[in-house]
Amino acid sequence: MADGATKVAGNEVIIVPESEIAGLMTAEAAFEAVEAVFAAMAAGDAYNFPVVREAIGHEDALYGFKGGFDQAGLTLGLKAGGYWPHNLERRNLINHQSTVFLFDPDSGRMRAMVGGNLLTALRTAAASSVSIRHLSRPDSKVLGIVGAGHQSHFQLRAAAKQRDFEKVVAWNYHPDMLPKLAETAAAIGLPFESVSLEDLGAQADVIITITSAFAPSLMDAHVKPGTHLACMGTDTKGKQEVEAALLARATVFTDEVAQSISIGEAQHAVAAGLIAEDAITQIGAAINGTHPGRSSENEITLFDGTGVGLQDLAVAAKVVDLALEKGIAQRVAF
Amino acid sequence: MADGATKVAGNEVIIVPESEIAGLMTAEAAFEAVEAVFAAMAAGDAYNFPVVREAIGHEDALYGFKGGFDQAGLTLGLKAGGYWPHNLERRNLINHQSTVFLFDPDSGRMRAMVGGNLLTALRTAAASSVSIRHLSRPDSKVLGIVGAGHQSHFQLRAAAKQRDFEKVVAWNYHPDMLPKLAETAAAIGLPFESVSLEDLGAQADVIITITSAFAPSLMDAHVKPGTHLACMGTDTKGKQEVEAALLARATVFTDEVAQSISIGEAQHAVAAGLIAEDAITQIGAAINGTHPGRSSENEITLFDGTGVGLQDLAVAAKVVDLALEKGIAQRVAF
Repeated sequence: MADGATKVAGNEVIIVPESEIAGLMTAEAAFEAVEAVFAAMAAGDAYNFPVVREAIGHEDALYGFKGGFDQAGLTLGLKAGGYWPHNLERRNLINHQSTVFLFDPDSGRMRAMVGGNLLTALRTAAASSVSIRHLSRPDSKVLGIVGAGHQSHFQLRAAAKQRDFEKVVAWNYHPDMLPKLAETAAAIGLPFESVSLEDLGAQADVIITITSAFAPSLMDAHVKPGTHLACMGTDTKGKQEVEAALLARATVFTDEVAQSISIGEAQHAVAAGLIAEDAITQIGAAINGTHPGRSSENEITLFDGTGVGLQDLAVAAKVVDLALEKGIAQRVAF
Repeated sequence: MADGATKVAGNEVIIVPESEIAGLMTAEAAFEAVEAVFAAMAAGDAYNFPVVREAIGHEDALYGFKGGFDQAGLTLGLKAGGYWPHNLERRNLINHQSTVFLFDPDSGRMRAMVGGNLLTALRTAAASSVSIRHLSRPDSKVLGIVGAGHQSHFQLRAAAKQRDFEKVVAWNYHPDMLPKLAETAAAIGLPFESVSLEDLGAQADVIITITSAFAPSLMDAHVKPGTHLACMGTDTKGKQEVEAALLARATVFTDEVAQSISIGEAQHAVAAGLIAEDAITQIGAAINGTHPGRSSENEITLFDGTGVGLQDLAVAAKVVDLALEKGIAQRVAF
């Protein structure tokens, strides 16, 4: 929170537009914010509200709200927005559009309005990074990426900071998108190989899946003992990135268990009776030390990252703090 | 919506602070906005999203979101905020705090942020006024008010415009609050009497109940044939303003049936088996003419006003239009 010197008057709202986020926020700051709020969730100090998600019957858009309250960080509010599939083609705007609104939990008054598009990408990348820091083998050398869309670049950049990776191996359903991911790997100094899924599983110590698929691509047999997986693409009933049997072989962690079993990667393994809900652990427990995390070199750990509102609030609160610190926060009487 | 001349650039958000609302919004404008959106709801052109309402475990606050989409008015967004019971005593702020956020339904981008406190009072008053216009006897002469808190003054002012009332009769659990309501009646030129509930029912042609009670005050036997009632106070499971038998005797209308039977005044009559869900009519049907409304002089009509997000969006959109028309809309790059 802001210190005394930068305290905001009660009837002012801080505005941080989308265009300012890139200059203010770093992957490191996102990592710290997301790690802290995952820890608060597992400690019972922070919780997410029921998610509202509506197909509004206009422009084929999905629109809704993800809210929550972090009593440890005193962060209250919501992300509002959604997916407008025709934006790019019809108006040269990105299809995902979101805004984060923060409220003062002491009084209920508006505190800040923050552009949420880049923040959503950064908080999703931060979540897989947090899982890599706390669950992957410290000697992990090869990073595997399944998926090569817009978000995969954020995941790669954030993951690369967590271990001394020597190489990136990647697969995508459309191979023509892989050269662009190779450029990102080159930009951070990592060799890059386009590989088959078999080869990816055989080489990778850490695997991030970041697709929007409705059928599994990565199979149980592809994955070698000791691997850590971060499955980041499944956020809807029906989507699936990895074979359900892989979750039965792995120790499964998630951001929020209720989402993991209903709209996350674990929905299929739970529905098939391969794993039980109570076998899934909030990743915050591994951060707090109330769960030991990885217990052996050969254990497979899997993080089911479904995306929760508290992540959005955490990175937005960080941006507001940074904007205040740097003296570039816009204030509007409200 | 704004016309071409006042069109807002895509990357600008319009801000209308709480302090500007009183100077922009009128009871008439609120009436028009609420009447139109009730009509759109009944026509199937507008719908409310599931309501999020959370006791956050901090400052005893209730916080949440009421969202919706009106495809007829192209209004998309939500009201966020809630009830902070210690605000007045601890920080000299009003206990109800809310903000309305409007989004462009074509692109999902933020369009406007509008102070929601006064608007909430105006839209609630507008709802009972709409019911009086469409359901009460045109020759109604006496207006009864049950309740004398903050909101009762808004209800009285708005209702007075709908019929040629000659007198106001009022009752409140704490009689010491009635002289203040008498002042409001005097300000709009209406004689005022503090009366018993029996006398109120015997005299009034239109009755507005606006309390926060958990037990009925107005009984079935109090109410004479031909009365129109607008029950505006019940918005939570357990609250109740009038005896359930009165709903069985009345033709019941509401803003939204799902809320009426779960958190509205009709919850008790439905639970007791006195009325069926399908006997409750959306008031928009009476506005649109798909329901005849009042059918006889002696019929008792009862409007169960539960309060929906679309009302908030409708009045906020109106305020934005007025601010643009008057050239006083603040624009912030976003």
